[in-house]
Amino acid sequence: MKRNATQEEIDGVAARIESMGLKAHVIPGALRTAIGITGNTGPVDPSTIEMMPGVREVIRVTKPYKLVSREMKHEDTVIRVGGATIGGGGLVVAAGPCAVESESQAFAVAEKVKAAGAHLFRGGAFKPRTSPYSFQGLGIEGLKILARIRDTFDLPVVTEAIDVESVGPVEQYADVIQVGARNMQNFSLLKRVGRSGRPVLLKRGMSATVEELLMSAEYILSEGNYQVILCERGVRTFSDHTRNTLDLSAVPAVKELTHLPILVDPSHGTGRRDKVLPMALAGIAAGADGLLVEVHTDPEKALSDGPQSLYPEQFAALMEGLGRLAQALERPLK
Amino acid sequence: MKRNATQEEIDGVAARIESMGLKAHVIPGALRTAIGITGNTGPVDPSTIEMMPGVREVIRVTKPYKLVSREMKHEDTVIRVGGATIGGGGLVVAAGPCAVESESQAFAVAEKVKAAGAHLFRGGAFKPRTSPYSFQGLGIEGLKILARIRDTFDLPVVTEAIDVESVGPVEQYADVIQVGARNMQNFSLLKRVGRSGRPVLLKRGMSATVEELLMSAEYILSEGNYQVILCERGVRTFSDHTRNTLDLSAVPAVKELTHLPILVDPSHGTGRRDKVLPMALAGIAAGADGLLVEVHTDPEKALSDGPQSLYPEQFAALMEGLGRLAQALERPLK
Amino acid sequence: MKRNATQEEIDGVAARIESMGLKAHVIPGALRTAIGITGNTGPVDPSTIEMMPGVREVIRVTKPYKLVSREMKHEDTVIRVGGATIGGGGLVVAAGPCAVESESQAFAVAEKVKAAGAHLFRGGAFKPRTSPYSFQGLGIEGLKILARIRDTFDLPVVTEAIDVESVGPVEQYADVIQVGARNMQNFSLLKRVGRSGRPVLLKRGMSATVEELLMSAEYILSEGNYQVILCERGVRTFSDHTRNTLDLSAVPAVKELTHLPILVDPSHGTGRRDKVLPMALAGIAAGADGLLVEVHTDPEKALSDGPQSLYPEQFAALMEGLGRLAQALERPLK
Amino acid sequence: MKRNATQEEIDGVAARIESMGLKAHVIPGALRTAIGITGNTGPVDPSTIEMMPGVREVIRVTKPYKLVSREMKHEDTVIRVGGATIGGGGLVVAAGPCAVESESQAFAVAEKVKAAGAHLFRGGAFKPRTSPYSFQGLGIEGLKILARIRDTFDLPVVTEAIDVESVGPVEQYADVIQVGARNMQNFSLLKRVGRSGRPVLLKRGMSATVEELLMSAEYILSEGNYQVILCERGVRTFSDHTRNTLDLSAVPAVKELTHLPILVDPSHGTGRRDKVLPMALAGIAAGADGLLVEVHTDPEKALSDGPQSLYPEQFAALMEGLGRLAQALERPLK
Repeated sequence: MKRNATQEEIDGVAARIESMGLKAHVIPGALRTAIGITGNTGPVDPSTIEMMPGVREVIRVTKPYKLVSREMKHEDTVIRVGGATIGGGGLVVAAGPCAVESESQAFAVAEKVKAAGAHLFRGGAFKPRTSPYSFQGLGIEGLKILARIRDTFDLPVVTEAIDVESVGPVEQYADVIQVGARNMQNFSLLKRVGRSGRPVLLKRGMSATVEELLMSAEYILSEGNYQVILCERGVRTFSDHTRNTLDLSAVPAVKELTHLPILVDPSHGTGRRDKVLPMALAGIAAGADGLLVEVHTDPEKALSDGPQSLYPEQFAALMEGLGRLAQALERPLK
Repeated sequence: MKRNATQEEIDGVAARIESMGLKAHVIPGALRTAIGITGNTGPVDPSTIEMMPGVREVIRVTKPYKLVSREMKHEDTVIRVGGATIGGGGLVVAAGPCAVESESQAFAVAEKVKAAGAHLFRGGAFKPRTSPYSFQGLGIEGLKILARIRDTFDLPVVTEAIDVESVGPVEQYADVIQVGARNMQNFSLLKRVGRSGRPVLLKRGMSATVEELLMSAEYILSEGNYQVILCERGVRTFSDHTRNTLDLSAVPAVKELTHLPILVDPSHGTGRRDKVLPMALAGIAAGADGLLVEVHTDPEKALSDGPQSLYPEQFAALMEGLGRLAQALERPLK
Repeated sequence: MKRNATQEEIDGVAARIESMGLKAHVIPGALRTAIGITGNTGPVDPSTIEMMPGVREVIRVTKPYKLVSREMKHEDTVIRVGGATIGGGGLVVAAGPCAVESESQAFAVAEKVKAAGAHLFRGGAFKPRTSPYSFQGLGIEGLKILARIRDTFDLPVVTEAIDVESVGPVEQYADVIQVGARNMQNFSLLKRVGRSGRPVLLKRGMSATVEELLMSAEYILSEGNYQVILCERGVRTFSDHTRNTLDLSAVPAVKELTHLPILVDPSHGTGRRDKVLPMALAGIAAGADGLLVEVHTDPEKALSDGPQSLYPEQFAALMEGLGRLAQALERPLK
Repeated sequence: MKRNATQEEIDGVAARIESMGLKAHVIPGALRTAIGITGNTGPVDPSTIEMMPGVREVIRVTKPYKLVSREMKHEDTVIRVGGATIGGGGLVVAAGPCAVESESQAFAVAEKVKAAGAHLFRGGAFKPRTSPYSFQGLGIEGLKILARIRDTFDLPVVTEAIDVESVGPVEQYADVIQVGARNMQNFSLLKRVGRSGRPVLLKRGMSATVEELLMSAEYILSEGNYQVILCERGVRTFSDHTRNTLDLSAVPAVKELTHLPILVDPSHGTGRRDKVLPMALAGIAAGADGLLVEVHTDPEKALSDGPQSLYPEQFAALMEGLGRLAQALERPLK
C-alpha cells in the first residue's frame, strides 16, 4: 500500500482479496502497510487489485516462502514485548538459565541478569530431553515462577512450548513462545503458535537449511501471527571442538531474504562457556538483532546444559563488551 | 528370567519391582522373558530380586538407553503384523506411494506391489510438508482408503502420525504407526505412541546419531509399547549426488546395540529412483530386516516425492533381486 | 570409432586431432575404441572428424569431466594387473595390513589373505600420518618387502605414493599406485601418476563430492594414463558410530557417470572391525567392482589402524560370504 | 627459560637436549624463550634439565601437538613481515585477487587495496584447480609480478605454494608462503615449508578438525620453522546458503590451544561477496588476528572465484568498518 493509504483503503483491498476466495494478511509497518495474499493455487491476476485506491504496487513473490519474504515486505519487522524491542536496528539480550529449577534459582539468576542489563528473561519450564529419564522441567509450576519473575524484575519472559498442549499455558504465563530446534518442523505446533497472539521465537533446526527455517516461519505467518523472531543456534557438522557449529553466515543470509529479526544463541551454538563471549560479539558483528544467552548462578549443579551456562560475572562482562561493540556499530543497545 | 520361569514367577518379580516404587517392563521373548526396570534415580540393590524364584540374573544396563538395549534383552524382538513378521532373521518389504492421493491411485499401486510380493502397504494420509502451501494429505479420508486396501489385498498398512492428535485415527485404521524423521525427537508424540497398542515404525532423524535414535525408541518402550521398528532413511551431509546420504553402517551398529528390528528406506535415503534398487540390496546385505520402498504407478504426476518413487516394473525387479539375495544370505523372504 | 575400425583409421583420426593443435586420447575397449579430445578452449567443429573413415560418431561431453565420462566411453574400463581383473562385471579383493611393519609381519598376513582367496595385496610403505611423530612407514625397505610378497605369493601389489617423489620407487616395486584420500586434490601428484604406466587407485577425499572425485580422475587421464580405479572409503559427517560414513550410494552414482571401476574400502569406511563384513557385502550389493580390506595377524599391536583391521579368520569369513553373494548376483569372484 | 636467562644458558640447555639424542627447538618470545623438545619416544626425565641454570620449569605437554601448544609456549607468537605484524593483539589485513591474471590487473587491485589500508597483498601465481582444464595460474611470471607489487607499493606478498616444487620459487619472490586448504595434510609439502625461512600461512582443510589443523602446523614447527599463521576459511557442511560454512568458533578454540596467530578468510568462507563484510567483522569480533580478503577491480571477468571477490569500494567500506570495530575492541589496526 502507499504510505498515506487510509485504513479504509487497506480494509477495501483486504476485502477484495477475501472476496476472491483468497486469504489477506495485513501486516503493518512503520512506513507502510503490506498485504500478503495466500491461498491461491496458481498466479493471481494483479490488475483488479492494482487499480484500487491506496495500492502502490502488486509484487509477485518468487521465493517458496511468501509472507516471510523481503519481497513482500521490505521494511524490517519490529516486535515489542514489554519494554523490549526486537528488530529495527537496536540490540536486545534475553538471558537466563536453561531450565527453571526452582523459584530461588530462577530469582537468583534473574536478579543478576537484570542488573547486568538483560532485556528479557529466558528459562525452560517444559524441557525437551533426549532421554526419557532426564529432568523434564517443572511444567506449569515453572511457568508460574517465570510470571513472578516478570512482575518482580520487569523482564518480559521467553519460554518454550514443546507441543500443542503446552502452548496454552505458555501463552497464559509468558510473553514470547519459543519453538525449539527439534520442533522447527513440527508443523502442528507451528500452526498452533501461528494462531497465538504472542510473538514466537523460532530456532533453526540442527540440520535445517536457511530456506527450511524460513518455510517454517511461513507456517506461523500463514496462520495470521506475523510476530516471529528467528534464532541461529548452531548446526550439526563433523567439527568437534564445539557441541554444534554456529553458522553465523545465516545471519546476513536471513537479513537479506526476510524482514523478520534474528537472534543468535551462542550458548547452544558452542556448548562451551568459554566460547560464548567471543561468539556473542561475533554474532552481533555479523548483523544479528540480539542474543539468547544461558546464565546460571551455579552451573556445576545445573539440571541441564551446565557446561554452556555463563557465570553471572561472565554475563556482566559480555554485556559490557556488547555495549562497546554496539557503540562502534552505531546500534543502540536498548 | 530363567527359560522355564512360570507366569506366576514372572508376575511375582514384576510385583516386587512395583512394590519398590519402580516400573516393571515385562517383555516376553521366544526363549525367555526379560523384565526391565525403570523409574530408579540411582542404582537398585539387585539382591532381593536376584534371590526370587525364576530369576536367572540381574543385569545393570550400562547404556543411557535401557529397555531398548541388547544388554537388557539379548534375543531379537520379533513383531507380527497381520501375516507379516518383522525381525528375527527373515526379510520383509513395505511398499506403496509416498502419499495416498486418491482411492484409485492407492488401489492401483497396491495391486502392483501385492503382485510383486510386498508384505505391507505404506502410504501417507497425513503428510508433514516443508511448505504450508503444499499438499498436506487426505487425512481421515486417506486412512479409510488404507483400511480398504488392507481388507482388499490382505496387506497390513503402515502410515504416519504427524502429531499427537493424529495418533488416534491412525491407530483406528492402520496396523503400524510411523513416526517420521522430522518427529524423531517430538517427545510428546513418542510418549503418545508409547501408549498405543500398535507397533511403531520410528525413522532416524536427518541429523540424529544412532544413540539419539535409540533414546527416542526408549521413550516409546518406557511408556509400555515394546513393539518398535527402527528405520534408516539417510542423513544430511555435504554429499550432493543423492538427496540424503544413506548411512547403512547404522544397520550393523543398531543390530549390535539393540534387540529391535531395523528397516532401510532407500527411497528417502537416496531421493533418486535409479539408486533405489542397488541401495535396497546393499541395505539387506548390511543386515537390515527389510525395506520401506516408495512405488507409484505414475511418478511424474505424484503429489509428493515423485523422483524417488519406483515404477511398478522396477519394484518387481527389486523383489526379484531381493529373492536371489535372500537365498544367498539364507534369510527367508517371507 | 566403429567396431571394425582399423588401427590405421584410429591412427588417422588421432593424427587429425593432433594436427588441429588438440590432444587425442586413444582409449581401447573390448568392443570399440574411443578417442577423447582435450586441449580445446571452446567447442570443436565435429564435421571434419565425423567424415573420416572408421568414425562412428562425435559426441560432445556435457560434463565438466570429459575422458572419465560415460558419454565419452560407454563400455566399462577393465584393468588387468597380474592375474587380477578389475572392472567389467567380476569382483576383486585387495587385502593386507594398513602398513608394512616388517618382512615377517607382511609375509604372515600375505599368506593368510592368499589362502583365503584375495586377488591383490595391499600395504603401506609410505604412510601419511596426522602427527609428525607417528610411524611414517618403512619407505623403500617396505616397497622391497612388497615386491618379495608379489613374487612369493603371486599377488599383485597396491601401495600408496604420498608425494611426487615417492611415485618413482612405487612404480618400480609395485603394481598399482594408490593415491590416498588426503591427496585426492594434490594436483601435482595426480599429474605425475597420470604420466605413469601403472594403474592408479584413487581414493575419494574425506569431504569430496562425486564430481570432484571424477575431476581428480580426469587429471590422471588427461595426462595419458587411462587405468584409474576409484575407491569409496567413507566421508566425514556428524555421525559418530563409525569413524567415517561410508557413502555407498556413491557406487551406483559413479557407475552411471563413468566407465572407470570402483572399489569399496569398508575398513577406513567404518574404522571398526565388527562393521567391515556387513559393509563389505553391502558395497558389493550396491554394485562395486571389489573391495580393499585391511587384515592383520595381530591387530592389537598394529602400528596404525589396528581397530579396523580384520583378524585372518574374519577375512576368511568375509571371502566366504562374498562367494555366496557373488553367486547370487551372478558376478564372478575371480 | 627464566625471563633473564642469558643466551649462554639457553644454548646450554639446547646443547644438553641434543646430547640426549633429542631435538631442541629454541623459540624466542617477547618476555621469555621457550625450548621445545621433540624426538623422544617415551617420557623424558626432567630432572637433569630442571637443575640447569636459567631454566624456569619443565612442562610435559599433554596434547598430541607439542611445539604448537600453548602449554609449551604461553605467549602469543608475533610474526613480522615487512612492515606488517601478525599476532600479539593488533589486526592485519591481507587483500588482493584470487589469482594474478596479468600485471595490469594485479597492479590495479594493489593500488586500490593499498589506498584502503591493506597491510599485505595476496594473489595466486600457482592455482590448485578442481579441473585440469581450468586456468592454473601464471606460475613464475605471476611471482615476478607479485615481487614488483611489493617493491612498488611496499606491500609484503602472500602467495600459495601448491607442491614441493613450487616452494623454491615462492620463497624467492614472496614474503609469506601459503599452504592451501586442499594441501593441509600434504605432509611432504608441510615438511618442505618447515625448512623454509619464510613465514607460512596454513589454511584449515575443508573437513579438518581444529586438532588436525594444529597437527599440520606441528609438522611445520617440528622441522624448525616456528613462524606459522593459521587461517579459518570455512568447512564443508550440508548448509547451502554459502559455499562453505565459516566456522568462527575455531578462532577462540585456536586461541586457547596454541600461541600461533589465526586469520579469517571470509571470501572463501562464504563464497559470496555480499556476505564478506559481515563475516569479516564477525571474525574479528570472535578474536581473529586479521583477515584474508579477495578483491578484484572487475570481478565479473575474474579467471577464478569472481563471485566472492569484493569491488574496491566494498573493500574500502570493510576497512572503515574494521577501523571502528578495532577501536571498540581496543585492538590496533596497524
